[in-house]
Amino acid sequence: MLKFKVIKKDASSGARLGELETAHWKCKTPIFMPVGTQATVKTLTPEDLYEIGADIILSNTYHLYLRPGADLVEKAGGLHKFMNWKRGILTDSGGFQVFSLSKLRKITDEGVYFNSHIDGSRHFLTPQKVMEIEQKLGADIAMCFDECAPYPCTYEYAKEALRRTSLWAKICREHHKREDQALFGIVQGSIFDDLRRKSAEDIVALDFPGYAVGGLSVGEPKSEMYRILELTHTLLPEDKPRYLMGVGAPEDLVEGVKRGIDMFDCVLPTRLARHGTAFTHQGRITVRNAGFAEDFSPVDPWCDCYVCKNYSRAYIRHLIKAEEILASRLLSYHNIYFLTSLMAKIRQALAEGRFGEFYDNFFRQYKP
Amino acid sequence: MLKFKVIKKDASSGARLGELETAHWKCKTPIFMPVGTQATVKTLTPEDLYEIGADIILSNTYHLYLRPGADLVEKAGGLHKFMNWKRGILTDSGGFQVFSLSKLRKITDEGVYFNSHIDGSRHFLTPQKVMEIEQKLGADIAMCFDECAPYPCTYEYAKEALRRTSLWAKICREHHKREDQALFGIVQGSIFDDLRRKSAEDIVALDFPGYAVGGLSVGEPKSEMYRILELTHTLLPEDKPRYLMGVGAPEDLVEGVKRGIDMFDCVLPTRLARHGTAFTHQGRITVRNAGFAEDFSPVDPWCDCYVCKNYSRAYIRHLIKAEEILASRLLSYHNIYFLTSLMAKIRQALAEGRFGEFYDNFFRQYKP
Ligand SMILES: [Zn+2]
Ligand SMILES: [Zn+2]
Repeated sequence: MLKFKVIKKDASSGARLGELETAHWKCKTPIFMPVGTQATVKTLTPEDLYEIGADIILSNTYHLYLRPGADLVEKAGGLHKFMNWKRGILTDSGGFQVFSLSKLRKITDEGVYFNSHIDGSRHFLTPQKVMEIEQKLGADIAMCFDECAPYPCTYEYAKEALRRTSLWAKICREHHKREDQALFGIVQGSIFDDLRRKSAEDIVALDFPGYAVGGLSVGEPKSEMYRILELTHTLLPEDKPRYLMGVGAPEDLVEGVKRGIDMFDCVLPTRLARHGTAFTHQGRITVRNAGFAEDFSPVDPWCDCYVCKNYSRAYIRHLIKAEEILASRLLSYHNIYFLTSLMAKIRQALAEGRFGEFYDNFFRQYKP
Repeated sequence: MLKFKVIKKDASSGARLGELETAHWKCKTPIFMPVGTQATVKTLTPEDLYEIGADIILSNTYHLYLRPGADLVEKAGGLHKFMNWKRGILTDSGGFQVFSLSKLRKITDEGVYFNSHIDGSRHFLTPQKVMEIEQKLGADIAMCFDECAPYPCTYEYAKEALRRTSLWAKICREHHKREDQALFGIVQGSIFDDLRRKSAEDIVALDFPGYAVGGLSVGEPKSEMYRILELTHTLLPEDKPRYLMGVGAPEDLVEGVKRGIDMFDCVLPTRLARHGTAFTHQGRITVRNAGFAEDFSPVDPWCDCYVCKNYSRAYIRHLIKAEEILASRLLSYHNIYFLTSLMAKIRQALAEGRFGEFYDNFFRQYKP
């Protein structure tokens, strides 16, 4: 179950305003999806995230498969019920984590052998198995099992990873049966134009209800990422949502929207929060720095979130220095709010036909 | 500024229903006060605590003096504004922490030399200095600087500590000027009846707006604590609030109320939460235990708090195993709610003249 329609297109870029409906939730796009790796967006409750305005959250199949296990989540009545979340959920396929987190992996056309990063236990994930897991988790949107090539990698490596990704996408398509869940395909191909073309061709031929651009934001220069996005959005069907995986820097959200992206996810806002860093309309600030010790102004004077309305930089810095968890909680709240409200402003600009103006204004103020 | 009146007394015990008004807040007593050591009740926001029903929170002078410093809090506009708390605050005197946390202390009649537990820096706290600090922090209720004797200790040691506590109480009384802040005296004397009598006599003679019983819950058997409480409440004026410091086990709250106590504070609910333990109406449970892995019932089926309405033991156990902060947050919420709602039930029972019945019912179910 997934409905998507483009409501309005920007005249001078790939940007578009859309409407996305999944089994649990309906929202306007483009959106930013906060990451709840282990069935929790770190430090926050669902109610916090509703207040922040999050429409869909992402949860990680790799982590949930290892702990607490897909069977337990299924017994709990699915991921929504398990974690008390009433809006949309997207589960990734675990492909990225198998390659980035696990140890001693061995890859074949059938799947991937790997050792758990938690207890070293040996596992074998195949496209069939991943579909079984994701259907047990029961998110609104599931992702195909893919192989994400690292950066840099050789042309041959990227070609082989894309071949396998296409092969696995076909198997995932066949083994995905849950009608209340939509399965998205993933385009790979690293930074090689012809491989991106080939991957998009393969994946689009399988006719998915939505498409992700994977294998970006893995260390390549931003200019390369933007170039690949410019290419990719011309290769994907206009009437399906496009999801750029693992990207969450404010400037990249704006650049991504400009290049036709409808959905983003990233751990960045919560990770920065844990390190005492906050987004502001002028760029990032490190609240833990001594310079903020007596700064009684809000984290971002232009932000109207709960945190900025009620707490000072000095107080949050004190919490950081005192190693109090509330510091992470308040900064996570603000950082996610910053991104979701940025997306809301983008949607507003698109609705009013002034995205180009918004884009210019954004970069006049925001220094990445 | 402090107004207190006894509204109703229990016919067959020392228990009483009261009304307490301080500069920022008015509430019924007896109450439990959650502890926000470093200007934050660990993991929770003020809004969480309003929802939980907390009327007054306690913050630690020793910690705030060392970090971020009383001057910074004063510059922020006081503790209420600094931490965004709109109800009552009580600051302890730092006496307990100087003796339990700091290193290389040396005590004289003038005050205490000690080394900070944070950076080892040398400090000297006197009753005068503590009054200066507490007035800068600006809580609704401040406590006199006292010497809390450890348990066990000799009669001579306890006698000397009480002598000094009385001496310091007099100095505190003289140096406390803030009219919107009430200063409470502290009764010491360890487990020695005649020393408790002497201490109460000294402190009551100074005519404070409220009195605390200190030096209990420091390792002595519960029977000793209850015996001292039975004695103490006969020595303190009926028309002033009585505060039992550092006590928060559910059974001790009920026993304390029975012995005429109006106010309690303790780190227990948040500390237990961090260790994966929850209060239930039958006693404590360790949610992290494997036995709860597939238990989809609430933490306490008889609790109507936000956590028990929305999350299962299985989910919270998963969060604990996954080392997710939300585990501490949810259990802290529930544990504090458990104590504040226990106090609300006690007040209700007192209002309806059935405290004895409540007491019997409580202990029929709750196994300490
Ligand atoms: Zn904010
Ligand atoms: Zn509860």
